[in-house]
Amino acid sequence: MSNPPQTPVVGMAGGGQLARMTQQAAIALGVPLRVLAGAPGESAAKVVADVRVGDDRALDDLMAFAKGCDVVTFDHEHVPGPHIREVEASGVPCRPGSAALAHAQDKLVMRDRLTAFGAPCPAYAPLPSADPMPALEAFGREHGWPVVLKATRGGYDGKGVWVADNLGVETVELVGRLIAEGVDLMVEQHVPFRRELAALVARSPYGQGAAYPIVETVQKDGICVEVISPAPGLSGELAAEAQSLALRIADELGVTGLLAVELFETEPPRTGRQGSGRGLLVNELAMRPHNSGHWTIEGARTSQFEQHLRAVLDLPLGSTEPTARYTVMANVLGGDDPDVYSRYFHVMAHDPGVKVHMYGKESRPGRKIGHVTVLGDDLADLRERARHAADYLRWGKAMGEHA
Amino acid sequence: MSNPPQTPVVGMAGGGQLARMTQQAAIALGVPLRVLAGAPGESAAKVVADVRVGDDRALDDLMAFAKGCDVVTFDHEHVPGPHIREVEASGVPCRPGSAALAHAQDKLVMRDRLTAFGAPCPAYAPLPSADPMPALEAFGREHGWPVVLKATRGGYDGKGVWVADNLGVETVELVGRLIAEGVDLMVEQHVPFRRELAALVARSPYGQGAAYPIVETVQKDGICVEVISPAPGLSGELAAEAQSLALRIADELGVTGLLAVELFETEPPRTGRQGSGRGLLVNELAMRPHNSGHWTIEGARTSQFEQHLRAVLDLPLGSTEPTARYTVMANVLGGDDPDVYSRYFHVMAHDPGVKVHMYGKESRPGRKIGHVTVLGDDLADLRERARHAADYLRWGKAMGEHA
Repeated sequence: MSNPPQTPVVGMAGGGQLARMTQQAAIALGVPLRVLAGAPGESAAKVVADVRVGDDRALDDLMAFAKGCDVVTFDHEHVPGPHIREVEASGVPCRPGSAALAHAQDKLVMRDRLTAFGAPCPAYAPLPSADPMPALEAFGREHGWPVVLKATRGGYDGKGVWVADNLGVETVELVGRLIAEGVDLMVEQHVPFRRELAALVARSPYGQGAAYPIVETVQKDGICVEVISPAPGLSGELAAEAQSLALRIADELGVTGLLAVELFETEPPRTGRQGSGRGLLVNELAMRPHNSGHWTIEGARTSQFEQHLRAVLDLPLGSTEPTARYTVMANVLGGDDPDVYSRYFHVMAHDPGVKVHMYGKESRPGRKIGHVTVLGDDLADLRERARHAADYLRWGKAMGEHA
Repeated sequence: MSNPPQTPVVGMAGGGQLARMTQQAAIALGVPLRVLAGAPGESAAKVVADVRVGDDRALDDLMAFAKGCDVVTFDHEHVPGPHIREVEASGVPCRPGSAALAHAQDKLVMRDRLTAFGAPCPAYAPLPSADPMPALEAFGREHGWPVVLKATRGGYDGKGVWVADNLGVETVELVGRLIAEGVDLMVEQHVPFRRELAALVARSPYGQGAAYPIVETVQKDGICVEVISPAPGLSGELAAEAQSLALRIADELGVTGLLAVELFETEPPRTGRQGSGRGLLVNELAMRPHNSGHWTIEGARTSQFEQHLRAVLDLPLGSTEPTARYTVMANVLGGDDPDVYSRYFHVMAHDPGVKVHMYGKESRPGRKIGHVTVLGDDLADLRERARHAADYLRWGKAMGEHA
């Protein structure tokens, strides 16, 4: 009511840290952000004036939330596609739309679509729930063991992914248990990759695209712990190929908003029947601000959160130019002592240049509760600084072995 | 309740754009910000979850607001000193404290204190309300005409400041009218300055200080329209002198939080009895985030808003290192057409690197409703880009004559 005329209201379903950091960008743009959170204490609900509390997987709550929004977007992939289609049918645009988002919600849908237009993917196959073992055996025979079992839907941070070494009793029991629980499974080639990369792009409804520098992501126990921008030692050719691939996927899938493409940089010579043989395979897709893009808050002229808002509002996209030679981001995970605030004193006194981002979440061991970012010219020094700050915020001391 | 343990609640009295932008920094630090706003539609009230609506000049509202805050700070200088002392007496620290803040609330108190410890100020004198004209005549005779008349309290953006050319009938009527309205007046030397500078520093209760690069501020009709960091062509010696002066003032006055010192860079040879003769005179003080520091959001490693929070929380201060060779900020003023949002499209398409900050305020002609920032190496280009964006957001076209 008291907003300036014509300023659209952006609704974001989900009250996590991505919505929280989107609020920082919405404040700058003067765009009202409305958040659908599961509880008033969620990360984003603590920092947004216009919070609606509800279940973003429940149709009624979603529809009530969307009413009065000019556009709806998402903090995560877990809003059911049919519900998003109902919102779209009510006249409120969703960005990304349900058709595009399906490819970030179902790994089998994604693999089928990507391989159909020639995007390089690991070999994969569905495992029919009625009779999975013959398909699994055939896949292992063709592509070799180990293989990767994946739940087609609902996984994140390493959850929903299992490595199977052979067709022994453990694998048989695992597959049987998962199918009994109603999990739809697929199998993928276990790719011997050199490292993991991520390509972050934005695409607007108008069709404008923008690509960020390609980053290296470092995982530990399936959780991203560190992101380095740009990926050190990546050839200009492979970086351009990764950017082009991500822009092409965004275009082919009709993504509106951000698209993060998690990639394997493979060891040459690479085996497997798909892919161009030039060293990149698509691992996963996400259509929202992504952990691999948190470095952009300080490290790029336009943060991924602002870029996502610009894209979903169909505003012209912002510059993705880096603001420093290197930017290193390290995730802060919860440790044993939940009093993280008291540990700010050491971290800030030790390194006045480290940027601390905490998500207002209660600390639990291993939970992502924040991240730190450092920028500069000396990559080894930056990585050490980021590790020190992240370790200290977690443990209250520097833990080289946790880095 | 659901905040992580030990995390302090910062209360900010005032719901303007300074509190709004402080919220962006509070989000990153994971620190809950509580705002006392005059109405739910105020700039900061639109973007903060914990808003209390009340009159920050009314003691009861202020006391109710402060209860449960771990520290209280201010978006402006208009909270009465006696009320702040009541909050302090209740056990809630105020930063800045009432004793320090008095120097930003009363220009005569400030001048007396600064000259007492040798900070360079223009010549000045109080004008006794009972019989002002003899004192004014004596001041004009000693320091020459014109002189500057100032309301000792309550002015901002050129309000509360008048230039008097002589002791003629206009001046006599003006002084008579102001005194009849209950305005306390002082007179200052009209300083022939070369340009205006600003020194921004932070000081924590622990006593740590940090100084930002000295900026040039460009005013039009008493309103700051442009800030250039660092001030072009300023000698290293004078820049260091300005930083030292601001740090010394912060220390002498016991400021906690930010201190902005507005300075005149005078033409040599400078006349006037005070000052070191080296070209700087203190114009005004502010003890809060300041318009002259908005450039730090992107242009310094630590934004002034984060720095203010760190200082009032007695956390170690952040690096003030610039992130680019030059940063230029231009204020966006309201124009005739309040539909500012529609003008984003041109501005963002024209210049993907311009950073737009809008305050969620209804546009009224001449009102500060936002600012834009650009960063880079070519100062002339940056000033042109900032002017273009600010003019276009105001007028819907580039207006060279308004630059």
